[in-house]
Amino acid sequence: MENTHNFILPKTNLIGIGAIKDLPNELLAWKLSKALIVTDKNMISLGYVENVEKILKNLFISYDIFDGILHPNPTVSFVEDGLSYFKKGLNVLRNYKLIISIGGGTNHDCAKAIAIVATNGGSIIDYEGYNKVTKPPLPQISINTTAGSGAELTMFAIIVDNSRKVKMTIASPFLTPYITVNDPIFMTTMPKEVTASSGFDVVSHAIEAYVSTEASPLTDSFALDAIRIAFEYLPRAYENGNDLEAKEKMMYANIMAAMAFNNAGLGYVHSMAHQLGGFYGQTHGCYNGILVPYVFEFNSASIPKQRIMKLCEAMGASTQDTSQAIDIIIDSIRRLTAKIEIPGKLREMGLKENDIETLSQNAMKDITVFTNPRKGSVEDFMSLFKSAY
Amino acid sequence: MENTHNFILPKTNLIGIGAIKDLPNELLAWKLSKALIVTDKNMISLGYVENVEKILKNLFISYDIFDGILHPNPTVSFVEDGLSYFKKGLNVLRNYKLIISIGGGTNHDCAKAIAIVATNGGSIIDYEGYNKVTKPPLPQISINTTAGSGAELTMFAIIVDNSRKVKMTIASPFLTPYITVNDPIFMTTMPKEVTASSGFDVVSHAIEAYVSTEASPLTDSFALDAIRIAFEYLPRAYENGNDLEAKEKMMYANIMAAMAFNNAGLGYVHSMAHQLGGFYGQTHGCYNGILVPYVFEFNSASIPKQRIMKLCEAMGASTQDTSQAIDIIIDSIRRLTAKIEIPGKLREMGLKENDIETLSQNAMKDITVFTNPRKGSVEDFMSLFKSAY
Ligand SMILES: [Fe+2]
Ligand SMILES: [Fe+2]
Repeated sequence: MENTHNFILPKTNLIGIGAIKDLPNELLAWKLSKALIVTDKNMISLGYVENVEKILKNLFISYDIFDGILHPNPTVSFVEDGLSYFKKGLNVLRNYKLIISIGGGTNHDCAKAIAIVATNGGSIIDYEGYNKVTKPPLPQISINTTAGSGAELTMFAIIVDNSRKVKMTIASPFLTPYITVNDPIFMTTMPKEVTASSGFDVVSHAIEAYVSTEASPLTDSFALDAIRIAFEYLPRAYENGNDLEAKEKMMYANIMAAMAFNNAGLGYVHSMAHQLGGFYGQTHGCYNGILVPYVFEFNSASIPKQRIMKLCEAMGASTQDTSQAIDIIIDSIRRLTAKIEIPGKLREMGLKENDIETLSQNAMKDITVFTNPRKGSVEDFMSLFKSAY
Repeated sequence: MENTHNFILPKTNLIGIGAIKDLPNELLAWKLSKALIVTDKNMISLGYVENVEKILKNLFISYDIFDGILHPNPTVSFVEDGLSYFKKGLNVLRNYKLIISIGGGTNHDCAKAIAIVATNGGSIIDYEGYNKVTKPPLPQISINTTAGSGAELTMFAIIVDNSRKVKMTIASPFLTPYITVNDPIFMTTMPKEVTASSGFDVVSHAIEAYVSTEASPLTDSFALDAIRIAFEYLPRAYENGNDLEAKEKMMYANIMAAMAFNNAGLGYVHSMAHQLGGFYGQTHGCYNGILVPYVFEFNSASIPKQRIMKLCEAMGASTQDTSQAIDIIIDSIRRLTAKIEIPGKLREMGLKENDIETLSQNAMKDITVFTNPRKGSVEDFMSLFKSAY
């Protein structure tokens, strides 16, 4: 009876205040000649890109900067713009040996997509799904600036195909970046809404990884501790953008939740949130915040009792009764989203009732459905969307 | 104020029953020509090496087998024998592109040492200490057969220099294997004493990583859960070698404790146990079993109260009083080592009173001292050895 739980993640994760100082040593060992930086203009004006440029100059690594990523959702057109820029670079000078993404999830995802097409050819749309990438992409270093998507370290790239209004999930161990940097020096105070939505994205990663059919003792450790940390520190980080301790703790929660879902997978919250993002383009973490209680209630019948108890404990409560534990969990999540002012219903986030059937059909095709603990039909998805409407 | 907690480990960890089946896919992506297998004759007679040979043949990867590792402690002479074998291979055929270690910690450690000298030259003795390796060693895949040392995934190699009676610690992120395999298919029932000593090695890795000065939220998650698992399942694995659930759980505890200490480091238990191993050559895990209570008591003054409470909880007890918690922890460890019949005193494991001063001086030089929570003098080491004598 096979029962494998492989654990895949970047070999080198530089973490903490000042961690960027260890990057030159890592780069030195590689003997690289030319890098493509994938970022956005905000990262340039914050001085983060310059910080990395200095490191590259000191090591005599030449580089170009693609700063054409414009808004929060990574799209096929950004990827194509990046690839045009990439090909121009190839004509003029030496080949790029490395992609460095600086920013949040959008920038890391676009960089992953550029890195795939650069070595595999075709269009990024060809690689939607699991394990469609056959050749190693360009090696990637990701310098992360938000505690949220975990994209700096996962094997997933989420790219919006606007022509179909679909958020494609591209998954392959090849997409795992080589080096990640999570240094608070690169994490300025964010607008409160971003702290809330990216912070709750962390919570939803941890919950979905914990209840996943592919959960293992390793992913459980990180998922439960990420939940413990987020329930304690997310409200603080939201209340006071200058609370450095809360910010640092949420950075760890993000890393741990991402390492968990990178290996355990996600579930219906993400299957549904991806569709909402594709259709209405609003913030991913807020869709999750609305969906988690409904999806958890739906899933609860398929989650072992002992695991429901542990999840309840991680949220700071304890009880001997399973159905009471389910209520406590749902209530704890609702109190958390209320504290960080995430809307309560999907209609406040753009959902149109007429779209529910299409969204449900699309959700069924998202690869995150495979690790959800309870199998649902289109009707189940429709009723979940309707409850959360 | 810098505060970094980098997290380094192999990118790909194949874990669980049947996990070896994923190895061919991983190897395919590498396009390798020739591998050196580092193992011992017992692994050959158990059929484990043949299992790997089949995979290599199917992928048209040629290989040679060095099976000259003879006894439980990895020595400089095994490494030198391996290097002679390695150089012979280079003369006759193509260069080795890969080292595959099959076995327990001794085989992985010897393979790491061979891989270092193969690309860096000199003698393995030149690389004792932290970060002395300057060029990437030959890439290593480690196929692990015991739940104990964690050597299949760490950046450490422990090699005994018999001429000085010293267990050298060689540490460098470069030593991190590329792929690890922890598949119970390669883990036959071990003699009870080996289950006890390797199982308690896991416990001591987790405890030392948890109290380490370099502990982080990531290493804490794994360390505490490894302790929880080991306290529940090690006695069962010891009682009944056919308890497959207990065996599988201990495999996870080993991986998690190793990922924790790989990044948080170890402490005085290992500083002292390395010397005892170098002098008297008996089982590492048993030395740890005797030492942990004494070292923990010594360290307890320097471990934050809240963390002592959490450690106590992980061992299944709870109290509001710190000094009571310390007593409970020490008592819990003693009860665990008694259950798995680890000797109570070092004199039963070869220690001679006359050697204590030399052992203490050597222990001070072991690199594991740097992450111990309380700093000790030679006199402190001497009194620890004497208490445990
Ligand atoms: Fe997400
Ligand atoms: Fe050990």
